[in-house]
Amino acid sequence: MSELKNDLFLRALERKPVERTPVWIMRQAGRYLPEYRETRARAGNFLDLCQNPELACEVTLQPIDRYHLDAAILFSDILTIPDAMGLGLYFTEGEGPKFENPVRTAADVKRLGVPDPEQDLGYVMNAVRLIRQELHGRVPLIGFSGSPWTLATYMVEGGGTKVFAHAKGMMFDRPDLMHELLDVIARAVIAYLNAQVEAGAQALMVFDTWGGMLSDRAYREFSLQYMQRVVEGVIREHEGRKVPVILFTKGGGLWLRDMAATGCDALGLDWTMNIGEARRQVGDKVALQGNMDPCVLYASPERIRQEVATILEEYGHGSGHVFNLGHGIHPGIDPEHTAALVQAVRELSPAYHT
Amino acid sequence: MSELKNDLFLRALERKPVERTPVWIMRQAGRYLPEYRETRARAGNFLDLCQNPELACEVTLQPIDRYHLDAAILFSDILTIPDAMGLGLYFTEGEGPKFENPVRTAADVKRLGVPDPEQDLGYVMNAVRLIRQELHGRVPLIGFSGSPWTLATYMVEGGGTKVFAHAKGMMFDRPDLMHELLDVIARAVIAYLNAQVEAGAQALMVFDTWGGMLSDRAYREFSLQYMQRVVEGVIREHEGRKVPVILFTKGGGLWLRDMAATGCDALGLDWTMNIGEARRQVGDKVALQGNMDPCVLYASPERIRQEVATILEEYGHGSGHVFNLGHGIHPGIDPEHTAALVQAVRELSPAYHT
Repeated sequence: MSELKNDLFLRALERKPVERTPVWIMRQAGRYLPEYRETRARAGNFLDLCQNPELACEVTLQPIDRYHLDAAILFSDILTIPDAMGLGLYFTEGEGPKFENPVRTAADVKRLGVPDPEQDLGYVMNAVRLIRQELHGRVPLIGFSGSPWTLATYMVEGGGTKVFAHAKGMMFDRPDLMHELLDVIARAVIAYLNAQVEAGAQALMVFDTWGGMLSDRAYREFSLQYMQRVVEGVIREHEGRKVPVILFTKGGGLWLRDMAATGCDALGLDWTMNIGEARRQVGDKVALQGNMDPCVLYASPERIRQEVATILEEYGHGSGHVFNLGHGIHPGIDPEHTAALVQAVRELSPAYHT
Repeated sequence: MSELKNDLFLRALERKPVERTPVWIMRQAGRYLPEYRETRARAGNFLDLCQNPELACEVTLQPIDRYHLDAAILFSDILTIPDAMGLGLYFTEGEGPKFENPVRTAADVKRLGVPDPEQDLGYVMNAVRLIRQELHGRVPLIGFSGSPWTLATYMVEGGGTKVFAHAKGMMFDRPDLMHELLDVIARAVIAYLNAQVEAGAQALMVFDTWGGMLSDRAYREFSLQYMQRVVEGVIREHEGRKVPVILFTKGGGLWLRDMAATGCDALGLDWTMNIGEARRQVGDKVALQGNMDPCVLYASPERIRQEVATILEEYGHGSGHVFNLGHGIHPGIDPEHTAALVQAVRELSPAYHT
């Protein structure tokens, strides 16, 4: 493997000194980039793109080439695991992901097994290996998974939802069954993330998109508990270097102390929480990643620069901050506005690391 | 006016002793009730129902008759104000509210004036008067409005949104214009709520459905500041009795102390916050209303009763709690499940008021 030329991202996650705040952008390989849309058009549909390692590698590298970001993230989808479990993932234009076989009954849950990552999700592992090779050590590669609870919501609902009638119905009425489901998903997530590390991922991120839709009690019991198992189950050192784990619960601002107590290395923050207040809460337990409102990118480059300045100032001096949006970049964003964000972080952050 | 026979709700909001915890349900007059669907079918569309005082009164009273809840809430829509400002509200089946004339430019903002409640929103005031009369003092009547920020998002977007590209675009790029817009909306909200009080509303609630989509800084500047103005501008005593004001920011768990500091009487809580923790944070400054996850109502009556017990226990002993869901009841809920909730509050709560 090529030696890592830019390890700012890994150092910041370990809260070791850095010269400037590293920056990457959730969903950085995405529809806002014309070069992505061009590759996507060649691939066919979204799933074809995810399942083709060469094309997945191509789009993963596009934002690195364009913006010289400090980390690459595997281009994939969080629903690859349920698909490999036999749920039959498909995408409908404008309606998002769907499953042919949602999980609704005890029999449905019992049928599920832990997929073999190399056997059943080989296209992901091949993409990781290829991206790692093609990065030539420019920046670290992030592997990722959905959180067990977030995957469970899609699996039980059979697709996206705003209401969670089926998933929460099962959680409230058959908590035993929901725990059985979360148990098999958690084991699958651990195997999947570990295979990504073996294939070359140098950091891991767990996306808990829907944990924030739970009550305090339910979050602890049905989401956090299983993320804790993931943190405990994944490879934390590889190729002689720490593999940091980032947990991100969207809308999780009320639970930062609890998330930090899982033993993870960093928390992703959405934009609702003041990052300075978050830092006061978690102390030196974890690094923080975030947390600009993705909608700031609709504003002018001058305004974007101001918001970057404010967030850097809120976090304050010292390492432990990875600049990012608080959620994925929107498809309608002007790529020049993204450039303004990256440039602002690069120019304004060194003052906080002297 | 008839004397108020059941003032549990008003006493709880003033944190005065009560015999049991009062209960009402957000969106209690709604599609989950067969009698509502029957009236709605007679009315024509949703807007016709809102604009017909007799039918609005009829549906307002339906859940009171069925469940003997401790408060009635005016049946109306939060978008009546922008409609009266000339934006042209209409509803499309399955797509929610839309405006013919969204507010996008400085000229659009300058055209807006404060509607005269009796002149331009007479159907709402007539509904309030009629409901108050038909209640015969059974329970208090709650008047309400959307928060200035929440109304602004609909007005700028021209309808509902998940992304807030236009509203936040204006907020970030033209904060001066957004403030001008929020100023005229806040004045309209104050006039509207005061007219509801004059017409017979005995408590007020401000629904800040989209404040929780803002960053900490933006929430304070663009939502909370204007709710504070509303709290300061509304009639707080009428007919010789306090008119309590409840503020509800969905996803506002991080800002409870700040909301309590506005001088309002109570906070509505969504289900993500532990209500015991919320009580510790706000102390005896305000009462709390909430906060069961509406999805609990998909579960069995036994499970619903357990959740009620847990929330009552979390709040603990003493007055200052109004039981409610953490958001509106879903249309698919079995009315018998709602009955189980109400019965559980009635049976289990007296133990906390001895």
